[in-house]
Amino acid sequence: MTQPAPLLALLTDFGRVDPYVAQVHAVLMTAAPGVPILDISHDVAPGNLWQAGFFLTATLPWLPPGSVVCAVVDPGVGTDRRVLVLQAGPHWIVAPDNGLLTPVFSRPDGCRCFDATPRVLPASATFHGRDVFAPLAARLAMGETATDLASVWTGPDPVRLRGLVPYRDGKTLAGRVLSVDRFGNVILSLAIAACGPPPPAAALLTPVACPLAPSTTYGTIPEGQVGLLAGSQGHYELAVAGASAATRLGLAIGDAVTLFWPPGVPT
Amino acid sequence: MTQPAPLLALLTDFGRVDPYVAQVHAVLMTAAPGVPILDISHDVAPGNLWQAGFFLTATLPWLPPGSVVCAVVDPGVGTDRRVLVLQAGPHWIVAPDNGLLTPVFSRPDGCRCFDATPRVLPASATFHGRDVFAPLAARLAMGETATDLASVWTGPDPVRLRGLVPYRDGKTLAGRVLSVDRFGNVILSLAIAACGPPPPAAALLTPVACPLAPSTTYGTIPEGQVGLLAGSQGHYELAVAGASAATRLGLAIGDAVTLFWPPGVPT
Amino acid sequence: MTQPAPLLALLTDFGRVDPYVAQVHAVLMTAAPGVPILDISHDVAPGNLWQAGFFLTATLPWLPPGSVVCAVVDPGVGTDRRVLVLQAGPHWIVAPDNGLLTPVFSRPDGCRCFDATPRVLPASATFHGRDVFAPLAARLAMGETATDLASVWTGPDPVRLRGLVPYRDGKTLAGRVLSVDRFGNVILSLAIAACGPPPPAAALLTPVACPLAPSTTYGTIPEGQVGLLAGSQGHYELAVAGASAATRLGLAIGDAVTLFWPPGVPT
Repeated sequence: MTQPAPLLALLTDFGRVDPYVAQVHAVLMTAAPGVPILDISHDVAPGNLWQAGFFLTATLPWLPPGSVVCAVVDPGVGTDRRVLVLQAGPHWIVAPDNGLLTPVFSRPDGCRCFDATPRVLPASATFHGRDVFAPLAARLAMGETATDLASVWTGPDPVRLRGLVPYRDGKTLAGRVLSVDRFGNVILSLAIAACGPPPPAAALLTPVACPLAPSTTYGTIPEGQVGLLAGSQGHYELAVAGASAATRLGLAIGDAVTLFWPPGVPT
Repeated sequence: MTQPAPLLALLTDFGRVDPYVAQVHAVLMTAAPGVPILDISHDVAPGNLWQAGFFLTATLPWLPPGSVVCAVVDPGVGTDRRVLVLQAGPHWIVAPDNGLLTPVFSRPDGCRCFDATPRVLPASATFHGRDVFAPLAARLAMGETATDLASVWTGPDPVRLRGLVPYRDGKTLAGRVLSVDRFGNVILSLAIAACGPPPPAAALLTPVACPLAPSTTYGTIPEGQVGLLAGSQGHYELAVAGASAATRLGLAIGDAVTLFWPPGVPT
Repeated sequence: MTQPAPLLALLTDFGRVDPYVAQVHAVLMTAAPGVPILDISHDVAPGNLWQAGFFLTATLPWLPPGSVVCAVVDPGVGTDRRVLVLQAGPHWIVAPDNGLLTPVFSRPDGCRCFDATPRVLPASATFHGRDVFAPLAARLAMGETATDLASVWTGPDPVRLRGLVPYRDGKTLAGRVLSVDRFGNVILSLAIAACGPPPPAAALLTPVACPLAPSTTYGTIPEGQVGLLAGSQGHYELAVAGASAATRLGLAIGDAVTLFWPPGVPT
């Protein structure tokens, strides 16, 4: 006999104004009664798979083993894109096969992929979050196994986004902006786990041509300067004390940036 | 002995910035401990009864039988408008008598109205969501019956909004914009249950004079065109692939629109 | 043996877009399983301690005895500001020692302060909401006592904000704007408990030089006028029927205002 999941986590770009999230919640509460629901975010920039993947991987380490995640950023809803069930270490994830899970595939503890593409068309052609993904996630959360509701993944590999792997060359690290948070902090695709912590030396950011002060906290970034931190989300982060680094630097999600360190600094 | 409700659903225009929703939640959690709370939306456009009624009727089908809904969009708070308790099929709804429930009154499984207008003034004159409606909803959710806390509705019929019934004339359907969602999709007052699904033929939208491509999913709307879909919320929906139909068409909540089909198309 | 708290309440300026609130929720759900979570607000204006303190004191009366509040508006995260555990009547509050709790210190039923500043650095230098405050709140919610996880407060008194005590002089009351709500209602630092209810006579607001109509509900404010009400949050409130008083008056959080009553009106 199996245990219900400790929690069901939701990640979407549905926003919180419309009743879409509520209808997904209602499906989950009906099909998996008693399983607590955790909203990771519903405000992923519409259709933005990079930001969605970042929100997901930044939050996974905080979810208890056995948690089930339903991640729906799905511009291809109603087309023939496949439905993916992924075992990622101690967690289960249900998501469209559109690249959203790219940063999860590279985790060291390995992944197993299952194909849960529905054989019968769901009630709606435009809201698979409610009609396909949530019912699958609820069944997993109630203790059904992946093989109960999906088959082993065959055919083409799951879709992967390009451009998420940092480029490294001597004293240079190149990546992209994954997200800009409420405070204007700029989160880069440079993961601390992959790149090591930022070297404790001033760097230069291009194409903005801005010097970066190595920092550990927002409050200790020298006034008027942009700080480079090992951020709380596991990524390199650019910040300005009491102001928006994104506004100061003119950066937005998806922008490419390169960091240079002077000779003699180990990266 | 009665059972607690499977869930308590909330619909308001209070927004999520101020602590108003939290105070309603605290009242519900105290008076109906253990009953899960579902937030339908708290971002109804301030005072907009059309959008509130749409959010409510679009979500009711997803709520388990016995659910209790507390719907508070209440520009007349503190005046002598009455307080309505409605049995709508398997659900219970508490709301101000101001027209919010208009689209619920027409459901085929029938409604019963009760009057729960307080005889004693509540703690606040300006926050009946917290001080009148939430306590009533909590009592219903704990298993009290409508006759425990309200009397049968007498006197003038409950208020109904005008202009929500679609106009149909030969090849013409006329209605209004009920809501514009986060993606810019435009939801019309034309319910599929009342009008049938959109005919699979090109239509013309006025007063914008825009041709509409019949579509089933967002992804299959031809590039550069506006699609007409049977939307996931049970209403006719206008959409543009990867962009905002509302912006393209210049439409906002409340706007009147008419759809024309060419001769020979059955509507 | 101790009981778990009836609820864990959260108040932050993290916003709802980023996954920060979800990570705090995940920590709480893991460390205090089964304790319901109440989100007071996550949209305090970034770093605004006045608004945060107002949201907190306006909501505390609605929380059941034994509730634990985790309040994190913390521009000094990672610096040497201390971590405060406060017993405030029947509630427990965990917060940074930066003045956020100023309006709580003055409650008549008394407060007891404890120092829970961590001796060991937490996982992150920039996200103590997740890594310091939430674990403390979860332990309190599970029934540990303040002395289990903190020591009695010694050294300098907790930080207090200045300018929150209303100034009163004859027919004059002077205070500040604490918050502007979704409807444009302007909430002043004039608490009804401290100042008594607004006198039922026309007042003059400066520096805007606007007459104020004494009112009890939004709907009864005379058209075209600005009403002064005893608001539902326990404070003097300025409102306009169906429009934004803040826009009409040009007021924002932090602005200083003075109310004058004519001779003969008791204040």
